[in-house]
Amino acid sequence: MAQFVNAKDDLVKEAIDGALAASGGALARLDGYPHIKVVYRADWDRSRVALISGGGSGHEPAHAGFVGPGMLTAAVCGEVFASPSVEAVLAGILAVTGEAGCLLIVKNYTGDRLNFGLAAERARALGRRVEMVVVDDDIALPHLPQPRGVAGTLFVHKIAGALAEDGASLDDVAVAARRVIANVASIGKSLDTCTVPGSPKEDRIPTGKAELGLGIHGEPGVEQVDFDGAAAAMSVVLDKLKPHLGDRHCVALVNNLGSTTPLEMSVLTHALAEAGVASHVIGPAPMMTSLDMHGFSVSVLPVDDQDLAALAEPVPMSAWPGLLALAEVQVTPLPDGLTPIAPIPSANDKTRATILHVADLLIGAEDALNALDAKSGDGDTGSTLATAARALKAGI
Amino acid sequence: MAQFVNAKDDLVKEAIDGALAASGGALARLDGYPHIKVVYRADWDRSRVALISGGGSGHEPAHAGFVGPGMLTAAVCGEVFASPSVEAVLAGILAVTGEAGCLLIVKNYTGDRLNFGLAAERARALGRRVEMVVVDDDIALPHLPQPRGVAGTLFVHKIAGALAEDGASLDDVAVAARRVIANVASIGKSLDTCTVPGSPKEDRIPTGKAELGLGIHGEPGVEQVDFDGAAAAMSVVLDKLKPHLGDRHCVALVNNLGSTTPLEMSVLTHALAEAGVASHVIGPAPMMTSLDMHGFSVSVLPVDDQDLAALAEPVPMSAWPGLLALAEVQVTPLPDGLTPIAPIPSANDKTRATILHVADLLIGAEDALNALDAKSGDGDTGSTLATAARALKAGI
Repeated sequence: MAQFVNAKDDLVKEAIDGALAASGGALARLDGYPHIKVVYRADWDRSRVALISGGGSGHEPAHAGFVGPGMLTAAVCGEVFASPSVEAVLAGILAVTGEAGCLLIVKNYTGDRLNFGLAAERARALGRRVEMVVVDDDIALPHLPQPRGVAGTLFVHKIAGALAEDGASLDDVAVAARRVIANVASIGKSLDTCTVPGSPKEDRIPTGKAELGLGIHGEPGVEQVDFDGAAAAMSVVLDKLKPHLGDRHCVALVNNLGSTTPLEMSVLTHALAEAGVASHVIGPAPMMTSLDMHGFSVSVLPVDDQDLAALAEPVPMSAWPGLLALAEVQVTPLPDGLTPIAPIPSANDKTRATILHVADLLIGAEDALNALDAKSGDGDTGSTLATAARALKAGI
Repeated sequence: MAQFVNAKDDLVKEAIDGALAASGGALARLDGYPHIKVVYRADWDRSRVALISGGGSGHEPAHAGFVGPGMLTAAVCGEVFASPSVEAVLAGILAVTGEAGCLLIVKNYTGDRLNFGLAAERARALGRRVEMVVVDDDIALPHLPQPRGVAGTLFVHKIAGALAEDGASLDDVAVAARRVIANVASIGKSLDTCTVPGSPKEDRIPTGKAELGLGIHGEPGVEQVDFDGAAAAMSVVLDKLKPHLGDRHCVALVNNLGSTTPLEMSVLTHALAEAGVASHVIGPAPMMTSLDMHGFSVSVLPVDDQDLAALAEPVPMSAWPGLLALAEVQVTPLPDGLTPIAPIPSANDKTRATILHVADLLIGAEDALNALDAKSGDGDTGSTLATAARALKAGI
């Protein structure tokens, strides 16, 4: 499948430079291309604890999109789905770490654990104060000794980031990060896998099925289940998350894994809201994607007032959708002065039959009218007429 | 293709209610389901000029995602790709219009022009002050007497919205909107069409081709062109936009039409930045989507300082990515204390051959290692090792 990329080897470099160009000067990078791809806050003065995350690319906006005041100080970017090297992580640490030290926030994958861990050792040998936390929020494979790190990582970025921005000590920031990691849980569900640039797409999920708990690199899920609509899909996900909801306020982070449309994400959020399990929501938005995966994930974190305040603290990065209360839908009466909404049916059988016949003709001609219309570049008239005809039929 | 929806007839209603639930109380809707789907600012007091837009759904976050302080007052939502009814638009007008009057911002499609236009007449007959502007920014089909309205509509929402928020008169807001419409130009390019819920996907664009200037309802483009990478795709688009760039500051709005990955959007933005045609950028972000279309559009508007200030004014809606200067990429030297980035090649031919052999083995085993790794739920180790091996080979 074609994609809007140039040479595969330039993909991540060009994407980073595109993001930097469009950052309005908020982001800078180290001069280490191609092997060292470190994005950091251009306004950073090393006066506080630095927060460094990263890992393989393909999860954008994570992590470079969350570099900025109140979240990450730097992101160390690997190639697509490949961990950055030890040297790259070390360069990131040395570039942004001052007296206050730094916290590495690492998703639990072999490559990342190894390379971030070795870089931490080397930075310590060079006299830097470095703490490292490993996020393992994926509950998809419950018997795994090493659960993966997925979208729940965003909770760590935001809560630790708010503390660090306020000048908290490295110990305090690390303690908060570990507390979040101990309590956060995530699971994803997808209708399709992802397209890795330069590789053929794996056609693993048959029509009518969805995969529960697949990984953000397209790793197979715990099971393929029948797909029976958005509400049922969200229900299965929330059932899995139920043991992790706690008895306090609970924040749900609703993550678009890639190519799920905003319409679908809103329908899923509607199902989440109806379930009444969360008091607050972050999203829906793409935050920790898996390239173009057609799926979503939900991460939950039981929170106290302090966590809520940290999550609600505004940040200037547009990738962060903000924390909002999950509220009842506010519905207000229609204004006066409107004609009745429902059409008034004709008492004359012949008129009625004619109207119904015309309505059926319009509904039947929807695709043909759209196609005809599209020739003048305008493709909505058939649907507009057919929708009106359906409303008419429903009303009489 | 399966999608995260429930019954097709409930799709737009559920999506709106999901968006409202996750708005933290910022949005409300009228009690007019299913025929009247009007989303408006819950804090609205009718004290200033109201801005109303809308049209068929399937273009989210447009338009409901842009309802809030400094942009729209209300969005009137039709079914997917179908114009809302005259009654729905009238309900929207009556719900939010006070003494100051309202401006209808309509994209140039037959259904929308007709229904918004008739609603405006009826609202005027009921004593409301109503102005209407029609956005026709799509330059894809240059000889069309009625060009379509696409993503350039966002410029109208934002500039007119900033004025209305500041208390400008209806006349002043309408004049500004018409000035923006006269100067804005947009064009899109896609690798695939979109999937309309409940309909089979049209398989129109062959592999190796891209379609230039297709519409946001999937209307066929002006031509199918060879696809030769992201940079060339952006170059063609910018060539078409060149006559519309003006000689002042120019703002480019980079719109994701649906399922283009953030990586691809950043690569396209890199190409835009390299071209040096725009001083400022909005995005890249999904703003005026076409369901899950794999494509992008660029809209350009030459601006003066007043327009720039209006576009830069912060708004609380997360769908608006903000205006930023399109800046040079800031590159800073690598920190001291790093080992040389390039590996030091061995002078011993046998050692060298062994290392190369091992590197080749690792590269050859990338997919097998990833697959093996995925069985423990962790899919990045093969790519991490292969990437390291490629870097090693490149260095010696």
